[in-house]
Amino acid sequence: MRFFSDNAAPVAPAIMAAIEQANAPDTAYDGDTLSGRLDAAFSTLFEREVVVLWVSTGTAANALALSLLCPPYGGVLCHEYAHILADECGAPEFYTHGARLMGCTGQGGKLDADTLASRLARVRPNIHQVQPHAVSLTNATESGLSYRPSEIAAIGKFCRERGLALHMDGARFANAVAFSGASPAELSWQGGVDILSFGFTKNGAMNAEALVLFNPALVEEARRRRKRAGHLLSKGRFIAAQLLAMLEGDRWLDHARAANRAAQRLAAGAEDRLLHPVEANEVFLRVSPEEAGRLRASGYEFYDWGEGAVRLVTSWHHGEADVAPLAHAIAAL
Amino acid sequence: MRFFSDNAAPVAPAIMAAIEQANAPDTAYDGDTLSGRLDAAFSTLFEREVVVLWVSTGTAANALALSLLCPPYGGVLCHEYAHILADECGAPEFYTHGARLMGCTGQGGKLDADTLASRLARVRPNIHQVQPHAVSLTNATESGLSYRPSEIAAIGKFCRERGLALHMDGARFANAVAFSGASPAELSWQGGVDILSFGFTKNGAMNAEALVLFNPALVEEARRRRKRAGHLLSKGRFIAAQLLAMLEGDRWLDHARAANRAAQRLAAGAEDRLLHPVEANEVFLRVSPEEAGRLRASGYEFYDWGEGAVRLVTSWHHGEADVAPLAHAIAAL
Amino acid sequence: MRFFSDNAAPVAPAIMAAIEQANAPDTAYDGDTLSGRLDAAFSTLFEREVVVLWVSTGTAANALALSLLCPPYGGVLCHEYAHILADECGAPEFYTHGARLMGCTGQGGKLDADTLASRLARVRPNIHQVQPHAVSLTNATESGLSYRPSEIAAIGKFCRERGLALHMDGARFANAVAFSGASPAELSWQGGVDILSFGFTKNGAMNAEALVLFNPALVEEARRRRKRAGHLLSKGRFIAAQLLAMLEGDRWLDHARAANRAAQRLAAGAEDRLLHPVEANEVFLRVSPEEAGRLRASGYEFYDWGEGAVRLVTSWHHGEADVAPLAHAIAAL
Amino acid sequence: MRFFSDNAAPVAPAIMAAIEQANAPDTAYDGDTLSGRLDAAFSTLFEREVVVLWVSTGTAANALALSLLCPPYGGVLCHEYAHILADECGAPEFYTHGARLMGCTGQGGKLDADTLASRLARVRPNIHQVQPHAVSLTNATESGLSYRPSEIAAIGKFCRERGLALHMDGARFANAVAFSGASPAELSWQGGVDILSFGFTKNGAMNAEALVLFNPALVEEARRRRKRAGHLLSKGRFIAAQLLAMLEGDRWLDHARAANRAAQRLAAGAEDRLLHPVEANEVFLRVSPEEAGRLRASGYEFYDWGEGAVRLVTSWHHGEADVAPLAHAIAAL
Repeated sequence: MRFFSDNAAPVAPAIMAAIEQANAPDTAYDGDTLSGRLDAAFSTLFEREVVVLWVSTGTAANALALSLLCPPYGGVLCHEYAHILADECGAPEFYTHGARLMGCTGQGGKLDADTLASRLARVRPNIHQVQPHAVSLTNATESGLSYRPSEIAAIGKFCRERGLALHMDGARFANAVAFSGASPAELSWQGGVDILSFGFTKNGAMNAEALVLFNPALVEEARRRRKRAGHLLSKGRFIAAQLLAMLEGDRWLDHARAANRAAQRLAAGAEDRLLHPVEANEVFLRVSPEEAGRLRASGYEFYDWGEGAVRLVTSWHHGEADVAPLAHAIAAL
Repeated sequence: MRFFSDNAAPVAPAIMAAIEQANAPDTAYDGDTLSGRLDAAFSTLFEREVVVLWVSTGTAANALALSLLCPPYGGVLCHEYAHILADECGAPEFYTHGARLMGCTGQGGKLDADTLASRLARVRPNIHQVQPHAVSLTNATESGLSYRPSEIAAIGKFCRERGLALHMDGARFANAVAFSGASPAELSWQGGVDILSFGFTKNGAMNAEALVLFNPALVEEARRRRKRAGHLLSKGRFIAAQLLAMLEGDRWLDHARAANRAAQRLAAGAEDRLLHPVEANEVFLRVSPEEAGRLRASGYEFYDWGEGAVRLVTSWHHGEADVAPLAHAIAAL
Repeated sequence: MRFFSDNAAPVAPAIMAAIEQANAPDTAYDGDTLSGRLDAAFSTLFEREVVVLWVSTGTAANALALSLLCPPYGGVLCHEYAHILADECGAPEFYTHGARLMGCTGQGGKLDADTLASRLARVRPNIHQVQPHAVSLTNATESGLSYRPSEIAAIGKFCRERGLALHMDGARFANAVAFSGASPAELSWQGGVDILSFGFTKNGAMNAEALVLFNPALVEEARRRRKRAGHLLSKGRFIAAQLLAMLEGDRWLDHARAANRAAQRLAAGAEDRLLHPVEANEVFLRVSPEEAGRLRASGYEFYDWGEGAVRLVTSWHHGEADVAPLAHAIAAL
Repeated sequence: MRFFSDNAAPVAPAIMAAIEQANAPDTAYDGDTLSGRLDAAFSTLFEREVVVLWVSTGTAANALALSLLCPPYGGVLCHEYAHILADECGAPEFYTHGARLMGCTGQGGKLDADTLASRLARVRPNIHQVQPHAVSLTNATESGLSYRPSEIAAIGKFCRERGLALHMDGARFANAVAFSGASPAELSWQGGVDILSFGFTKNGAMNAEALVLFNPALVEEARRRRKRAGHLLSKGRFIAAQLLAMLEGDRWLDHARAANRAAQRLAAGAEDRLLHPVEANEVFLRVSPEEAGRLRASGYEFYDWGEGAVRLVTSWHHGEADVAPLAHAIAAL
């Protein structure tokens, strides 16, 4: 049983069905009927008008977002473990034409206004130093923590005061919504987020992410940059279909709840081993190499996470029957 | 009935089936079993060792290829109507970090060594002028013509003599192979092509293109640039599945033959209206606005192509029953 | 005697003296007293408030200007013979991060609103084609013609109507002012120019060009981009000193008049050989290779300009004694 | 008396004289006689064949060097206080098209092989993380320390073992040579340096830096990139003249010795206040704000360096008469 990554998970049957249903001739690129429904569907979800562009990867969504919020000569404040800094092979630098990512420290991958302020204070406001133009948060974080609405609002307030734009990498935004119980609106634009990379691929889609723009002034430029990056798929209807099927009946939320529940199940009997509170679908455990070896010998697959620790990632399709045996195996270590 | 674009066509049932079959947990990105089979499958097809990277769009394939063959301070010779120059919103400039596309003229979108030589002769070999580093051909061309192996070989020879790399935009490579009867090898590396963008999306896939590298020295860089462009899909197995299903039993060639046949059928009764010989799946006809209006009134959809002309694009799924009525309608104009 | 290029000319004694006078400790970069006087000096000259940044080359001035007026995904309309397109080794593409230069034809290197309109009409306003965002004029042109104020105003009006920014490459702006008798204001912002690259190096300075910004909103970004391009010299006072000395007593205008006068002198006896009217400091003559050989044998140096033609460039230091013998030699061919 | 920066210092009389002597017509750009002598002059100095390109700023020299050694998708290991990271407004990212600068810690701005190895060990060699391609040292460092030849050789060895290129920012290379007593060769290519940014502007020139290429394979690309960055000055002879005059009679070394001597003089009576050993022309002192105020009240100008410390920079023109009073004033605090 694989607990490597939610990227390894299968595509949900409803999503696969939606893809098949989309298989009829329609207008190319994003001129099709399904793509045309996205803005309305997401506007309902976010309780205000938004514009949504589909893209196929979270890296593209993040990098596009940053290119809209930060000029080539600017900087982006983010956590030192942020995916954009640690795992995207320089895509933000490529899309922004050389803006600099400025890593900050913070417990469990989280930023707060104090951290940002003290990092900013180290930048001399002269012509020689790169000046930050934006902040990028990840929610849920790379360590599986979720921001509370008040935490985001505090960061958003800080950003407005300092003239910084605010991006949210929401590769696991669904898990954060599911955990916090807050609304998508509270966790995004109401807290000051300008652009959200709303991920669906890790949550049961095949290759569909939503770039959610809360600032209509950026839409035309966003479309140009997407095309120019080779991300305007010619048969875009198959991506749009996934997003619509995900929103339908709050399927995205059900999936995230299932994944979170599976993570809680794994964590339940291992409280004393947890590196971080479990607030999404990732469980980080202190486990010796020998113990990890025993779990692997029992057929469980997962990544080591530095020395003496491992990461378990649950997904939308992990039910009680999948995780209970692993939970027992951990408890029995 | 739509004859707008092969991008509007549906996904072939066998491709859809392959996508569904791929829907099981596997390693993320391109570490999965299906992606691992691509090099061997394409090496067989091309009768030599090749390395293949999947991407989701032809624009990404082309722009990646050019970024591997031309430095930021160089130029790329191409036809003035080439897709890379006319229809990719500056993606080549983005990926190459500012290399210049240098348009050449040529009948039916075709280049030849003489045209290239005379364009090159206009570039002074000093420090002030951008120096060409590569040539990009489109096969079949934007006007639906196919290169003969000898034509490609002549261009390839010219490129080697002048130290130019050679890229082929093969968004409709399958149609060119089908028309010419030559082998994929003859139409690519045997003629001197360094990188081929081999398109499958227009030919019945959902979102799958193969970047075929004939020079192994470029592979590591190609992988980096793909990731950095946000084109390393996390569930890459669904792209690989499409490519494998396309190669299986030469499905790609059957599709292309069907599309070419449909185009020939449309052209058959309209010899005197043809702007270009029909050598792939596109038919360009001299048709007055009034005549075009009559065809549209009969339910046919297609693009105008400048003044007094239209473009009809056939696809893998157009059978005799689809095109015969349109052929009659054209003959009856 | 060299008539290759005004770049080969010496530095004027008054400029050299100003450089020497600047040789005392002062604040680094552009924090010195001399740099601090530039805005006022140029504001007087242009009869309105302007901000001026010094740079060391015309290529840097032009490329910086374009990077301020055109996004990476946009295009710049210019003459096909414009220096930015023909002689800057891709600097505009580098500074703009890949914007596309779109060459237009036009007599003697000149553009007009009709030419621009018909070039624009060839761009489909869709997502696939690069959309122009700016126009760049050269005044005096690469063929030695000068724009009249009304011609610039017509282009400026066109640009405003179409939402295009307007840049002027004024490497020989001084010669255009001298020829036309119009004011610097009339030939720039009053005609709709947003940024002027005002050249002094060809006109007797050592390495000093003024980037003249008529739009204060662009100043902060311009300063950043200059620094980031490595063009914020640490001892900037030596550049500022040149510009101030050039403006003093309208030395720049005297120099340009002298150069223009020398060009007129050369042209006077060769009316029937002129390729273009002489409206600045360049003379293009129809001269057979054999005739060119005779002139060279007499000690004159100059460039061939295509087949059967040559270019003679005069400079601020060419007096009657320098050009009279050459004028006779040409007349005697 | 100013001890802000060696950038504020005047141009040495011999350099000014050389500039004046260069003031005669010659070929434009770098086709002049003086530019033509640079390779030979520097080859003598470095005891092997080198190619030298003049540029006007250290930022341009550094950024060009990095663009030659690191691809856009790569990284450059450097000290966290390196000028390229802290004071060049993102020029390296601009010139390299988005490569990432990876800051390392180290006493006094120095790197060593262990530091580099442990930083490298934190980079996972997968497709998701930016991989370092080069190391950049600063000699003398930003804290005024000089590398010994053996230290550079150890880093050079490490670089070769790991496939990393090696750049040296030598804005104060002269001071490092003067302090260490080692030869330019020992401190550069013999230790494994691929490209050296050899600074002269801080050392008494007006605006002249030498990009010293030890690898001839990079020369053509270097020339292209310099032109494309707008750094090929049209009257390059005035830059070449400065470099030649600096090399003549080892003037560069005399200047550096004078500046170092002045720094030693300042440090002599303040041993207990030194933040770093004085190994070049910079003196960092622990001085309370109140003490700093007293020095300033006596007419000395300098920068604060964090809390409770100041930086004094000496220059080629500071003689005993200039520094003795300040030395006394410091001793008397």
